[in-house]
Amino acid sequence: MLFRTVGIVGVGLIGTSLGMALRRRALAVRVIGVDVDESALAIAKERGAIDEGTRSFEQLRDSDLVVVAVPPDAVVDTAVRAAGAMRAGGILTDVASIKGSIVRRLEQRLPRGVRYVGAHPMAGSEGQGAAAADPTLLEGRTFVLTPTKRSDPDAVATLTHLAQGLGMRPVVLSPDDHDELVAQISHLPYLVAVAAASAASDQALDVQGPAFSALARVAGSPVDLWTQICQENRDAIRRALARFREELDRLDRALEDRQALQTLLEPARRRAAKSGY
Amino acid sequence: MLFRTVGIVGVGLIGTSLGMALRRRALAVRVIGVDVDESALAIAKERGAIDEGTRSFEQLRDSDLVVVAVPPDAVVDTAVRAAGAMRAGGILTDVASIKGSIVRRLEQRLPRGVRYVGAHPMAGSEGQGAAAADPTLLEGRTFVLTPTKRSDPDAVATLTHLAQGLGMRPVVLSPDDHDELVAQISHLPYLVAVAAASAASDQALDVQGPAFSALARVAGSPVDLWTQICQENRDAIRRALARFREELDRLDRALEDRQALQTLLEPARRRAAKSGY
Repeated sequence: MLFRTVGIVGVGLIGTSLGMALRRRALAVRVIGVDVDESALAIAKERGAIDEGTRSFEQLRDSDLVVVAVPPDAVVDTAVRAAGAMRAGGILTDVASIKGSIVRRLEQRLPRGVRYVGAHPMAGSEGQGAAAADPTLLEGRTFVLTPTKRSDPDAVATLTHLAQGLGMRPVVLSPDDHDELVAQISHLPYLVAVAAASAASDQALDVQGPAFSALARVAGSPVDLWTQICQENRDAIRRALARFREELDRLDRALEDRQALQTLLEPARRRAAKSGY
Repeated sequence: MLFRTVGIVGVGLIGTSLGMALRRRALAVRVIGVDVDESALAIAKERGAIDEGTRSFEQLRDSDLVVVAVPPDAVVDTAVRAAGAMRAGGILTDVASIKGSIVRRLEQRLPRGVRYVGAHPMAGSEGQGAAAADPTLLEGRTFVLTPTKRSDPDAVATLTHLAQGLGMRPVVLSPDDHDELVAQISHLPYLVAVAAASAASDQALDVQGPAFSALARVAGSPVDLWTQICQENRDAIRRALARFREELDRLDRALEDRQALQTLLEPARRRAAKSGY
């Protein structure tokens, strides 16, 4: 076993999926869920994600790992509260999909003894909450770790093993590099999906087709979460949007000219064909 | 059986998938494939899409239905040639993903006795050719029929039954309405995918994530086909692009303001959630 006790704070989609995967893969002897929502704890327990659910952060005291899996704008306060309950030497991480601002604020506020490393398991679905959890949600996905010069190397190594144990691909990035990356591969696709769903006529929405559905589906994701993400990562998102719009303008101009169009489409085809998913 | 003999001209992805579905669903006693590529005919026959393959259009003379399934820029000439071989009263259709220009040109050039109705089975994949065919490719998809005032109502009815027999959803649109629609739900998503694949950094492409992959995948489709589509349907595509960019600009401006952002995201979420696929 990699861990004796893992505490998961926030049994939503990611927290519950993580708990299910930890227990199925025998990565932890015991998983404790902490949440203010007792019905979510009951679902998480029933689904086999946690051994025990509680509203009390005090129950985190025996955890060798605590994972904060709450919405981005609650991560910092929740992590500080969790750290206050943890024993010295415990490892603390979070799963928020934005890292720069969170890691900076947390590193200023966390007590010395707790070893914090930011993380982002890059998985999700349009579902929400413990009921939508899936023990295979994380499998095969990228697990980004965002250590800084303050991070404990052993804690980074342990979280790398965790990622591997979960069947994920660990990737180490600086918090800011992470945010640039997810702006391109997650936040931009979301905004593009929203724009496509908004721009389509009712008839177009009714008929659809596989390409449109693939494009628009992610616009069905929870609005609260995405509002937070968009605001927190606004600058990187704007850079990604600008690059994307430049490419779209180039394509628009090339519609006049078969040769010019092919010159743009062919490299994109090769890049898309490299797609791992 | 709906048909005694169906001729399929062009045993590529759609033609071969259609042949497989026709035979599996017992919609035709006999299916004849016509193609200039004998190896494609051999694959189509081996995969159970056709009873017989030939390079000769003369073999279409007994067909009560001929489906022209060649790339868009070859449809008109190929359909005229097929019609020349068909018996009077035979039904002729094509499966090109653009209809306005093709239907107009064909209606001027086809001989009187052949009953032509344009069609577009809205299905596809990133695959290409007979080898990538799939008998279930068409199932559950929309089958657009684009009759005009010149079209024979019985031929429209027969093709409607064909669509239903294939497990598809028949929808009747004018050729121009069809082109506006597919600009929004198929051609725009393709160009958006190309722009996203082009704009992403190499690292972003390497890491990816489910949202990016869903967005970019269709950029892996055949460039030749898409160059034709983009040129043929340029005006409608530009209108769809303009609407899409307007929405994207609106989102960009709203990144400053949580309230404004939610006001844009929430209706898009509801629209995306209606997605049938």
